[in-house]
Amino acid sequence: MDALDWPAVAVFGDNGDGAVVLVCEHASAFIPPALDGLGIGDSARLSHVAWDIGALDMARRLCARMRAPLVAGQVSRLVYDCNRPLEAPDCIPAKSEVHDVPGNRGLSDAARRARFDHIHTPFHDTVAQVLDRQIARVDGPVTLITLHSFTPVYFGQRRDLELGFLFHSRGDVAEAAVQIETRKGVMKAAVNAPYSATDGVTYSLQKHGDARGLPSVMVEVRNDLIDTEAKAQAVADHLADTLTQAIAAATQGASA
Amino acid sequence: MDALDWPAVAVFGDNGDGAVVLVCEHASAFIPPALDGLGIGDSARLSHVAWDIGALDMARRLCARMRAPLVAGQVSRLVYDCNRPLEAPDCIPAKSEVHDVPGNRGLSDAARRARFDHIHTPFHDTVAQVLDRQIARVDGPVTLITLHSFTPVYFGQRRDLELGFLFHSRGDVAEAAVQIETRKGVMKAAVNAPYSATDGVTYSLQKHGDARGLPSVMVEVRNDLIDTEAKAQAVADHLADTLTQAIAAATQGASA
Repeated sequence: MDALDWPAVAVFGDNGDGAVVLVCEHASAFIPPALDGLGIGDSARLSHVAWDIGALDMARRLCARMRAPLVAGQVSRLVYDCNRPLEAPDCIPAKSEVHDVPGNRGLSDAARRARFDHIHTPFHDTVAQVLDRQIARVDGPVTLITLHSFTPVYFGQRRDLELGFLFHSRGDVAEAAVQIETRKGVMKAAVNAPYSATDGVTYSLQKHGDARGLPSVMVEVRNDLIDTEAKAQAVADHLADTLTQAIAAATQGASA
Repeated sequence: MDALDWPAVAVFGDNGDGAVVLVCEHASAFIPPALDGLGIGDSARLSHVAWDIGALDMARRLCARMRAPLVAGQVSRLVYDCNRPLEAPDCIPAKSEVHDVPGNRGLSDAARRARFDHIHTPFHDTVAQVLDRQIARVDGPVTLITLHSFTPVYFGQRRDLELGFLFHSRGDVAEAAVQIETRKGVMKAAVNAPYSATDGVTYSLQKHGDARGLPSVMVEVRNDLIDTEAKAQAVADHLADTLTQAIAAATQGASA
C-alpha cells in the first residue's frame, strides 16, 4: 500500500465556457493518514502553513461566477508544494514560517522524488490539460488566474495589505487590476505584494502562463477576509468584477 | 447575485486509466451561505442527513487505488439530492429522517427548478462526460460504481450490516461482490441492503449504468467504519480488492 496514493488534484466546473482557467495550488490541508500528520502540532495542522485558508471557498465561488474551470490541489503544501519545482529548497519544507515539520526532515532523494511524482506531476498535467481544453473551447486568449491567501501576521509582523496581484514577467492584468481596485477604493491592493516573482512564488504562472504566451495573474487575499464561506463569497464577487474588467483592459490592447 | 452560484461537481483523478468510473453523489455537506443553512440545527448540519459521512474520503482513496476518475457532488443533498429526479418527493426534502428542513418548506416550482438546473444538471452532465471519456480511453466495458454511506442508527433502529452492494436491474457485480465478501469473512455484507431499487436509491445507476448497458453497482458502507481518513483508507483498500475481483468475475462472463 502506498501512503501517497490519494488524488493530487480535482477539477471543478469543467463545463465553464469563460475565457479563464483558475488554479488553486494550496486548496487543501489534507495529509495522507499514513504520513502521521508529518509530526506537526495541532495548531499548525489547519493553519496557513498547511494550506491557503479560505482560498478554495473563494476559488469555488469565482469558478461559478466567471464560468471558469478550477484546478485545485488536494494535498497539503507541507507534503509537496505544487507552486514549487523539485529544485526549490522549500518544495518539501522541513520548516515553514515558525513551524517545524519533523516528517520532512532527512528525506531521501527517492522519497522526495516520490512526493514530486505523486503530487506535482498529476497536478500540473491536469492544469495543462484543462488549459488545452479551454483554449480549444473559447474564442480569444485564455487568462490563467492563480488564487492564494496570505496570513495577516507573518514572522510576528502584522500586514495591512488586503489584496495582491502578482505576475511573473507579463504584468498587464495585474497592473490593470490594481488600477481598478484603486478606483473602487474598497480593498487595499498592490502589485507584486506581499510577495513577488523574486520570492519564487510565480512558478505556476511561469510554467503555464508565460511559457504559452497567455495573460496571467496571481491573486493573494489576506486570509482573515475569506475565512468563512460567506466572507469568501463576498470577496469572490468583488474580485470577479475586478478580474473581468482587468482582463478586458489587458486583452483589448493585445488583440487591437 | 445568485445564491446557488457555486460549483455542483468536482472530478478527481481524471487521468486514471482504470476501466471504472466512481460517482459520489453525497460527498459534500456544503450549503451555499445565502441559504442560511436552510434553517437546520447545528446537530443536523454535519450529520448523515446533510451528506454521506466518510464517503468522499473512501472514494478519493478508491480513485487512486483503482486509477478511476471520481465524480463528486459539491453541494449538500439537503439543497438538492443528485441521486433523485425532480419528480421524486424527496429530491429537496422538507424533512430528512427525523430532522425538519425549514428552508425547503413551501418552495415554488420555479425555486425547485432552479435547484435542479444549478445542481442536478451539471452533476449528471459531468458524470456522462467522464463516462464518455473513460469509455473512449480504455478497452473493454467500463463499470460504474456509486459510493455511499449509511447511518448506524436510523429512525432509532441500530443496523448490524456493514456493507451493502445494490443494483438497479443488473446484479452481476453486486452478487459477485457479496460472494467475495462472504469468502473473506471480514465485513458483514449483503445484496440490496440496507436499501434497494424500490426505495428509489438507484437513480444514478439506472440513468448512467443500465441505460448504457454498463455493469454497475452501488456501494453502501456503514459510516462509523469510515468516519476518519485512516478508517476510510482501510475500508477503501479492502473494497478496491473486492470490487476489482467482482468486476473481473462479472465482466469475464459477459465478454466470454
